[in-house]
Amino acid sequence: MTNTDELKRTVYWEDGRVFMINQPELPLKYEIVSFGTYREVADAIRTMVVRGAPAIGAAAGFGMALAAHNFETDSVDALRGHVKEAGDVLAKSRPTAVNLFWAIKRMQTLAAMDFDSVGAMKTALLDEAQKIADEDVEINKRMGANGAALVPQKATIIHHCNTGSLATVNWGTALGVVRSAFYDNKDVFVLVDETRPRLQGARLTSWELKEENIPHKVIADGASGHYMRTQGVDLCVVGADRIAANGDTANKIGTYNLAVVAKENGVPFYVVAPTSTIDMETPTGDDIEIEERGAQEVTHVRDAQVTPDGVDVGNPAFDVTPAKFITAIVTERGVVYPPFEANIREIMTEDADG
Amino acid sequence: MTNTDELKRTVYWEDGRVFMINQPELPLKYEIVSFGTYREVADAIRTMVVRGAPAIGAAAGFGMALAAHNFETDSVDALRGHVKEAGDVLAKSRPTAVNLFWAIKRMQTLAAMDFDSVGAMKTALLDEAQKIADEDVEINKRMGANGAALVPQKATIIHHCNTGSLATVNWGTALGVVRSAFYDNKDVFVLVDETRPRLQGARLTSWELKEENIPHKVIADGASGHYMRTQGVDLCVVGADRIAANGDTANKIGTYNLAVVAKENGVPFYVVAPTSTIDMETPTGDDIEIEERGAQEVTHVRDAQVTPDGVDVGNPAFDVTPAKFITAIVTERGVVYPPFEANIREIMTEDADG
Repeated sequence: MTNTDELKRTVYWEDGRVFMINQPELPLKYEIVSFGTYREVADAIRTMVVRGAPAIGAAAGFGMALAAHNFETDSVDALRGHVKEAGDVLAKSRPTAVNLFWAIKRMQTLAAMDFDSVGAMKTALLDEAQKIADEDVEINKRMGANGAALVPQKATIIHHCNTGSLATVNWGTALGVVRSAFYDNKDVFVLVDETRPRLQGARLTSWELKEENIPHKVIADGASGHYMRTQGVDLCVVGADRIAANGDTANKIGTYNLAVVAKENGVPFYVVAPTSTIDMETPTGDDIEIEERGAQEVTHVRDAQVTPDGVDVGNPAFDVTPAKFITAIVTERGVVYPPFEANIREIMTEDADG
Repeated sequence: MTNTDELKRTVYWEDGRVFMINQPELPLKYEIVSFGTYREVADAIRTMVVRGAPAIGAAAGFGMALAAHNFETDSVDALRGHVKEAGDVLAKSRPTAVNLFWAIKRMQTLAAMDFDSVGAMKTALLDEAQKIADEDVEINKRMGANGAALVPQKATIIHHCNTGSLATVNWGTALGVVRSAFYDNKDVFVLVDETRPRLQGARLTSWELKEENIPHKVIADGASGHYMRTQGVDLCVVGADRIAANGDTANKIGTYNLAVVAKENGVPFYVVAPTSTIDMETPTGDDIEIEERGAQEVTHVRDAQVTPDGVDVGNPAFDVTPAKFITAIVTERGVVYPPFEANIREIMTEDADG
């Protein structure tokens, strides 16, 4: 698999640099940016040049490979120390998405192995980062197929945030399910939650859907219940930034409101996420740290100021949806239904190829 | 009562012109604009220079007085016909808020009476419009007192849209309750739903609260449930654009989601509206026409484009909250609890001074 997939990869490695689609510029400008140091990659994650839990994981993997690539030493131990340090810096870029920590841990586990030479370790680290990225695409396509089976032949679907190609290396999680259903010739119509404050739905999801002519319209987040109540919605699909062992799910702010309103209206609510998003060391949603982001995301839209000068703002980037509001969790290994605690444990202890 | 109230009136008459605070310019610019014809007043309602159900009603009253004021004739009948025509034009400016139709009907009922002269009729119409405006302020203060009694001594309150001085002639409905509680020395903190797409909360409610140093912070609409679930919210207050005879309430889009999430979290949900917002001729919420507004409100924020070019948009301006999600309706005549159908009927048949 190369970087010339049908869909451009959101994050990839080329000639000793990490490339990303510059997401804050979308949809008005499509731009590829590249970074030559792991600190720049950490900044890109922090400032959301790249966002979406799986994409962040892949970016962190490449970031650590880049740290190794750039580090001049003859000592495997020194290189190992430097890679660890890079992982520590990258781990501080965003607090909520577990894929970040999962990818860093995977890279560090590899770095802890024995290597004959600095060159062998550098190559192994880059191979591992590339594998994380390649696997993400494969995993997304499997989730897409598993989820598409749940989509009726004709379906109106509410989607929150962006969980598409831009949130992953390619294809997407929740939006990957929509994509798979669409390419299975299902008659899908997507109500795209614009997803304040950063408008990932309005900016990114509608851009992806438009590029592929998947029918949709953008709505204010507060309108989702109105559509459920008055026009009929068949299902909601969302991604996840972290799923606790009991099924509680941290995802983009607004997910909880959507889930509560979906349940009230009898609309199935599906979380779509790879098993790398499930954190068995997080017992419940209450144990998930919720990132509070800067006021500017609420007070301004692009350069337009919308609030009075100096107003106080609350800007939690994520919320937690308790498991009882979730109909099922779609993973690459299959669809997990309640009771979540037992069924998540079962799927997590399965062999990945089982 | 004059136009020099402590709080500037949102809409008022002076020297043959109708003046309004130009709300689309807030909070960045505070500007008073004036209109010399009833058609301009209708346009101002349509383009939301003035908005909020009670303020629209007052504006329509002044618009009809202005139509009469400007019409040169010696015939009372001709004047009556012209005032009726002005009412018909004004009635088409917005479809959902019943106060608009209520005020127009009140002015037309007056116009249908006998008058000795054109001058007497013009004077009576202006007096009636002024009375509608003056009564609104009085009514709001009574609602404020009735509602403030429901607010705990220390209270975190979620407020949706703008229902303050700017949505009324003065003081406000739901925000009037907050204001009354604050001036009763209650320790209130307001979580201000920004209220996409037009951001009335971010732009107008925070501006009003800031002007009076009432503690608050602005949040994305999708964050309300997160605050209820994790930090504790004591009550939600919203206004109404139309209340059906069974208590179903049309209000700014996003109200229904907020109400459902409030119920799930055991947070009392109060609708605050004058009895002129209750329409006994609308049996249920299903009978309320919901205005669909232009795409630009979703695709752009001020001049900033947020969606791809030419994207489809759904932009319902209001939604209907079924009565079962409403804890009580606060009116100037008292607080109405369930069963709403019977209790609304009772309060509506009471003498207003009863």
